[in-house]
Amino acid sequence: MNFGVLLFDKVEELDFVGPWEMLAMWSKVAEGPGRCLLVAESPGPVQCAKGLSVNPHCSFADCPPLDYLLVPGGQGTRAEVGNPNLLDFVSAQARTCKAVLSVCTGAFILHAAGLLSGKRATTHWGSLDRLRTLGDVEVVEQRYVEDGGVWSSAGVSAGIDLMLAFIARTAGDDAAGKVQFAAEYYPSSVRYGAYENQVQAPAYLKSTA
Amino acid sequence: MNFGVLLFDKVEELDFVGPWEMLAMWSKVAEGPGRCLLVAESPGPVQCAKGLSVNPHCSFADCPPLDYLLVPGGQGTRAEVGNPNLLDFVSAQARTCKAVLSVCTGAFILHAAGLLSGKRATTHWGSLDRLRTLGDVEVVEQRYVEDGGVWSSAGVSAGIDLMLAFIARTAGDDAAGKVQFAAEYYPSSVRYGAYENQVQAPAYLKSTA
Repeated sequence: MNFGVLLFDKVEELDFVGPWEMLAMWSKVAEGPGRCLLVAESPGPVQCAKGLSVNPHCSFADCPPLDYLLVPGGQGTRAEVGNPNLLDFVSAQARTCKAVLSVCTGAFILHAAGLLSGKRATTHWGSLDRLRTLGDVEVVEQRYVEDGGVWSSAGVSAGIDLMLAFIARTAGDDAAGKVQFAAEYYPSSVRYGAYENQVQAPAYLKSTA
Repeated sequence: MNFGVLLFDKVEELDFVGPWEMLAMWSKVAEGPGRCLLVAESPGPVQCAKGLSVNPHCSFADCPPLDYLLVPGGQGTRAEVGNPNLLDFVSAQARTCKAVLSVCTGAFILHAAGLLSGKRATTHWGSLDRLRTLGDVEVVEQRYVEDGGVWSSAGVSAGIDLMLAFIARTAGDDAAGKVQFAAEYYPSSVRYGAYENQVQAPAYLKSTA
């Protein structure tokens, strides 16, 4: 099984490393995917949104057929929704993928690749209205959502929750539990500064405030 | 203000990218550190524990004096506790740092650099007994802990909670709230497979199981 994670300039760091950690841990401790690949358009370093520089495992040209593809978000998505090479890669791979996943504003790349029309999906709270404006997406304000093989999550850190839910659905609760335990993902529930009460806060957050 | 994050071969990905995201977000949205630097012994790519390859911003030789230093964990710590160049770098920087922080088994590097003796500290649940065996650390089973300017956290994902708590202490709750909101860090409380009931589970986890 090949699991690909898309990289592009100004991808947000935690958007892809959160899911990557869960994915790689799944391979290590619970018989997850045989190959986990970071894929970019070209060989050579990718500059992330917050200054991290990473080296992809393969380029579009040498990427094997993928069983699953995850598309992270970040400022870079604003340019990549107009990059035909990247959109062609995503839509071509998606045709034979069992599922595609997005984190944060990665949802806009899935949409531009023709994968979100008529589907329920979500994104970072700051981009929910922009996703609604596209007109053909049923935007939900959940931590993550799945609709017809397309998974999407809220912003940045939500990709971790998305990936654990995906593992639970794909390989069972025990596999997800092994990954969660190994990554010691039992996060604090502390909320600082009461920002969850802001008017822009997503519905899933307000409901638990 | 210079905030350094240490890298070394087989560093665990989320151990450093979780705090990195919070740190860089702090700089962006709440007047955090002016310079956030990923520092490795030598120039050139660092191979992480789960297969990610990253390019550090500077080497020990060209690293400026740091105000804060965070040391992540991972399998690589088992070798690095015997690397005098790395331990010299950590202990020399720590002398003028306002605080040093570790995530997961990064605690063993702080100890080897002489920074944990007589202090309360923690690490990944799977290494708590090994940390106790060192004899001169008061090991606590908390999500994170601070003692005399030395912060340490539980495993892998706990570095995110550590960094937000550190920001709150250093810059106030409102700054931490801005970072938390921007990174949409309001994690799910779902627990898979009941691994929190395992005998090895740390005390902070059992108390909320």
